[in-house]
Amino acid sequence: MKQLDGGITAPAGFTAAGVFCGIKKRKKDLALLVSDRPAAAAGAFTRNIVQAAPVKWDQNIIEAGDPVLAVVINSGNANACTGPQGTADAESMAAETAEALHIGRDQANRILVCSTGVIGVPMPMDRVREGIRSAAAHLGTGRSCAEAAARAILTTDTFTKECAVEVELSGVPVRIAGIAKGSGMIHPNMATMLSFVLTDAAVDRQLLQELLHESVEESYNMVSVDGDTSTNDTVLVLANGASSAPKLARNTEDYRIFSEAFRFVNAALAKAVVRDGEGATKFIEVAVSGAATTEDARKLAKSVVTSSLVKAAFFGEDANWGRILCAMGYSGGYFDPDTADLYVSSPGGTVLLLQAGAPVPFSEDDALQVLKEHDIIVKVQLRDGSSSARSWGCDLSHEYVTINGSYRT
Amino acid sequence: MKQLDGGITAPAGFTAAGVFCGIKKRKKDLALLVSDRPAAAAGAFTRNIVQAAPVKWDQNIIEAGDPVLAVVINSGNANACTGPQGTADAESMAAETAEALHIGRDQANRILVCSTGVIGVPMPMDRVREGIRSAAAHLGTGRSCAEAAARAILTTDTFTKECAVEVELSGVPVRIAGIAKGSGMIHPNMATMLSFVLTDAAVDRQLLQELLHESVEESYNMVSVDGDTSTNDTVLVLANGASSAPKLARNTEDYRIFSEAFRFVNAALAKAVVRDGEGATKFIEVAVSGAATTEDARKLAKSVVTSSLVKAAFFGEDANWGRILCAMGYSGGYFDPDTADLYVSSPGGTVLLLQAGAPVPFSEDDALQVLKEHDIIVKVQLRDGSSSARSWGCDLSHEYVTINGSYRT
Repeated sequence: MKQLDGGITAPAGFTAAGVFCGIKKRKKDLALLVSDRPAAAAGAFTRNIVQAAPVKWDQNIIEAGDPVLAVVINSGNANACTGPQGTADAESMAAETAEALHIGRDQANRILVCSTGVIGVPMPMDRVREGIRSAAAHLGTGRSCAEAAARAILTTDTFTKECAVEVELSGVPVRIAGIAKGSGMIHPNMATMLSFVLTDAAVDRQLLQELLHESVEESYNMVSVDGDTSTNDTVLVLANGASSAPKLARNTEDYRIFSEAFRFVNAALAKAVVRDGEGATKFIEVAVSGAATTEDARKLAKSVVTSSLVKAAFFGEDANWGRILCAMGYSGGYFDPDTADLYVSSPGGTVLLLQAGAPVPFSEDDALQVLKEHDIIVKVQLRDGSSSARSWGCDLSHEYVTINGSYRT
Repeated sequence: MKQLDGGITAPAGFTAAGVFCGIKKRKKDLALLVSDRPAAAAGAFTRNIVQAAPVKWDQNIIEAGDPVLAVVINSGNANACTGPQGTADAESMAAETAEALHIGRDQANRILVCSTGVIGVPMPMDRVREGIRSAAAHLGTGRSCAEAAARAILTTDTFTKECAVEVELSGVPVRIAGIAKGSGMIHPNMATMLSFVLTDAAVDRQLLQELLHESVEESYNMVSVDGDTSTNDTVLVLANGASSAPKLARNTEDYRIFSEAFRFVNAALAKAVVRDGEGATKFIEVAVSGAATTEDARKLAKSVVTSSLVKAAFFGEDANWGRILCAMGYSGGYFDPDTADLYVSSPGGTVLLLQAGAPVPFSEDDALQVLKEHDIIVKVQLRDGSSSARSWGCDLSHEYVTINGSYRT
């Protein structure tokens, strides 16, 4: 697997654009991702009961199973809690995009729509319409187009999230590339995590959906910034087959290679979202091994990065293993506390905090050397089985409280 | 129902004491609650897999169903993650208490034990032993004894939590009184929250356990400070029948009266714990009505007070209804967002934020008048049924992060 610099337009047959149309005050706020041929599409959506209009639109298209031609994304307005007008606006965004791409408004159901931003405010459709036309006129495959698209989907993010890789399937180069946004895990106001992954591999939609579901469980579902799940969270994947690689089939070496690369891209995007967590000063990875089942390992790892008490302890550079053990204890995942070992590790060293469930005397100085680093790994070694999982999170800082105490007004 | 000033010793036949024995640096750290006759006992315990030694000790006693004579409680050390030594220490605390009360060390299983404080540090048993003897020598029914016991169970709490009421059962006065502690790590399914409720009513242990389970669901399990569930959470109830009221029987007017008073005491203690939430500057009540089921109403209400984003918004006095709706959406409880109304209310007024699922234009000034108050009610009116629930929480402040970033060191 080779990492590429090209961004979201690295896969053949895709163009991208990102423009400013005035939904936000100054920054780019509308992106377009277009395939030059019908692409198989898969999606994963928020499980929140309160779903934004574009989420419902996309779910219908993905369920229908028809090929897709483009994705239009705006930032600055989530089109959530906007009633029947919101539903009409999401559909209208699809129709405008179809028209701007010269495929006819009646092909609106070939266009996926995503929105992120303020909740409960009607979409400024005049500006959106203008933005769609402008984006369609700026589509391209160059680095600047890819970068513009990655930028136009951001809200409170402080940097773009991109990942692109190349692998060979049956000797033929195939690309997978993605962009993502999201810095508070949810923002009913400036909502959401969005992720878009494009590939020029030929993958039928059922297989693509399976691959996505597997991958989501170990990537986007294993990160937490603040434990909240938004109204707009969406991951969309398009596979257009523009490479000349043979169609992907289950239980083949090609499948293994593609799956690994696809999971790498999703995990990279998920981790980038956490790195940009609101007010975060630390990046925390929790690696659980020796768990009875993968499900247990995931619950245990996820619970640790979600705990406010653990997060606040990392902000304070405090080796508070009791809170970590405690968060595992209420996670719903099984483990035997009496055989658990616990380490913290970073470029500053590794310190054993807990052995066979009992605290180990350690030097506070050594622990501080580990914890004062930005990237910290919590290693949990269980003796309950052979399953493992990783989760990613950030610390809870004063800055998080400040940002979220005054976001809306 | 009459509220009393007497504190935990208001019910007849109980004495209490609270002393300093050096587990903590300066403050009282050991309390004793003693019944002059065998009392029926009921308990509710943390669901955390990682359970402190005294939690296991108490669970065995409650399950065995034998009457209980006393509860010994220390603060400053949780006796959690302390291995076999911790188990021996919990048992030893019971035996020392039995001896100090002149009922013989072999009666240790008549003594319940609770610990709260630092995790993973062996109990300083010499000091604890001394504390138990000292407390036994200071037992009394006066206000100062009750107050000392209420104080000795505290950790980072800033005030004591007491509640005492009197009702008449078949015309005979009966008292119910409780004390509680807990300011961080408070969450549904209980957190290092300890609560002790004594009554001189005659209630058999099965009925007492039933009453407790019902009451816990709508009191301790409906509060949240930070979403963490601790290793030590315990609620213990002792009924000694020292009043001359007849034994409580199901489906009677006495039962209804007792149950209401018992629930009042538990809810009062649970709310007091939240009021003292670490770093809290606001007290938030979420009242959900019109839900399809009580289970739904509870999940919806609890999710709102648990959301970091909602909590940070209240700290910022921001009428962020989107975050409230969103937290309800991912709660796992059912509701129809399109028929939900949402208000915020306080001594500063009432403002309608959402009607039939759609945002209502409101004056930011009016909203600020409501939100700048300390006590705020979020009223959620659903149209899905006739069930309701209340939850209580606090805001997420800079102070919370400061306290929890440096608790251990």
